[in-house]
Amino acid sequence: MLIYGKNAVIEALQEGHAERIFVAHGVQPGTVKQLQSLARKVDAGFELVPRAQLDQTLKTTRHQGIAAELPDLQYAEPDAPFKLAEKRQEKPLLVLLDQITDPHNYGAIIRSAEVLGAHGVVTEERRSAPLSAVVAKTSAGASSHLPLVQVKNLPRYMDEIKARGVWLYGASGEATQRPEQIDWDRPAALLIGSEGTGMRRLVRDKCDELIAIPMRGKVASLNASVAAGILLYSVMGSRAA
Amino acid sequence: MLIYGKNAVIEALQEGHAERIFVAHGVQPGTVKQLQSLARKVDAGFELVPRAQLDQTLKTTRHQGIAAELPDLQYAEPDAPFKLAEKRQEKPLLVLLDQITDPHNYGAIIRSAEVLGAHGVVTEERRSAPLSAVVAKTSAGASSHLPLVQVKNLPRYMDEIKARGVWLYGASGEATQRPEQIDWDRPAALLIGSEGTGMRRLVRDKCDELIAIPMRGKVASLNASVAAGILLYSVMGSRAA
Repeated sequence: MLIYGKNAVIEALQEGHAERIFVAHGVQPGTVKQLQSLARKVDAGFELVPRAQLDQTLKTTRHQGIAAELPDLQYAEPDAPFKLAEKRQEKPLLVLLDQITDPHNYGAIIRSAEVLGAHGVVTEERRSAPLSAVVAKTSAGASSHLPLVQVKNLPRYMDEIKARGVWLYGASGEATQRPEQIDWDRPAALLIGSEGTGMRRLVRDKCDELIAIPMRGKVASLNASVAAGILLYSVMGSRAA
Repeated sequence: MLIYGKNAVIEALQEGHAERIFVAHGVQPGTVKQLQSLARKVDAGFELVPRAQLDQTLKTTRHQGIAAELPDLQYAEPDAPFKLAEKRQEKPLLVLLDQITDPHNYGAIIRSAEVLGAHGVVTEERRSAPLSAVVAKTSAGASSHLPLVQVKNLPRYMDEIKARGVWLYGASGEATQRPEQIDWDRPAALLIGSEGTGMRRLVRDKCDELIAIPMRGKVASLNASVAAGILLYSVMGSRAA
């Protein structure tokens, strides 16, 4: 699969994920040099191509003239977030997405989860944005660092991790509890519902507690990735304190 | 408001200003296709209509069968955020964006600012995403509720509001101070820098304090709109407490 954009490509090179990179004629010589040297270091191919070829292959013009071919993005085992938490000797913190269909939101949530120290992002096979180049780019490379799990059935996964001692917290505008009122010093999963309609009933009912970010404006809700970022920050602040 | 003519409509589409476009039956299939694909890209509506309807609505026949609806988007006076704060009997809280060029980030920040109770979002005329249909849409309508100020010179505006007693807080990954360590119970402005390079030197130097969201991952930064949301939430939580 292909990713694009200078930062995403550099990150992929540095991580040794890129198999080949493509640079359009006209990209700044300094940047070309940097990319060449990075590619050489990790034994990735390097190709100068016409910009129009990138436009066409990537079906966008927002690639900054730089693209890379990665091995197909792969989901992690359902167990991977727990292994990562164990390795870091931390209490697991997962983000479970219910029907987040916008790849930009999915990517931004992966990025926030990685930056703020969560151990994995879980999506359901149907009704979710799949792991794609847009997701990888929006995640600013975080999709290569964080276990991304795709499950067949999210409610069933909730049951499974609940049985392992994970507390399930659903973000819901109507809840009265604020994130600061929760004791986050325990294995936890944050449930984030779809941009339009929130969590499905079944998912919401399986949550141990519902929490809300207090709102003061006329617009009824935050963007899903902003809400996820605020909740993750809240958990991490409380765990660090 | 409606505009018409092939070039004007294509321009509006390319700039993301058009909310909906109208194409008369009989327009060349190639042109229709091009318009459809442009509209899809920016998430604008597309409607095929009888030519006579355009004649009537536009009160001209010189429309070439092509028209577009643009939102009535208007910037507010530089003073508007202060008036809103006064009306609400709150200490002003502004968000100042330095070179945020991505309309989705601009829109998402407007949405967060409105939802979390800030009094305005300020951008500079050059090097910023302009107020467009994409911005309005990403803001989920918040752009009609919150004063959006566009200034010619952001550093000068910083001087002006500093003289009015506003404290300037710059978000900078390298800062050591966390948002929780700030006394937010005072008039304040949050400075958010560009997605790629952060605040310009001049803007950074004018800040009273620099603050950072603590990060734990391998990816170096949060998405600008997520960072803005976390900071706004932090201010509002501290003010409400």
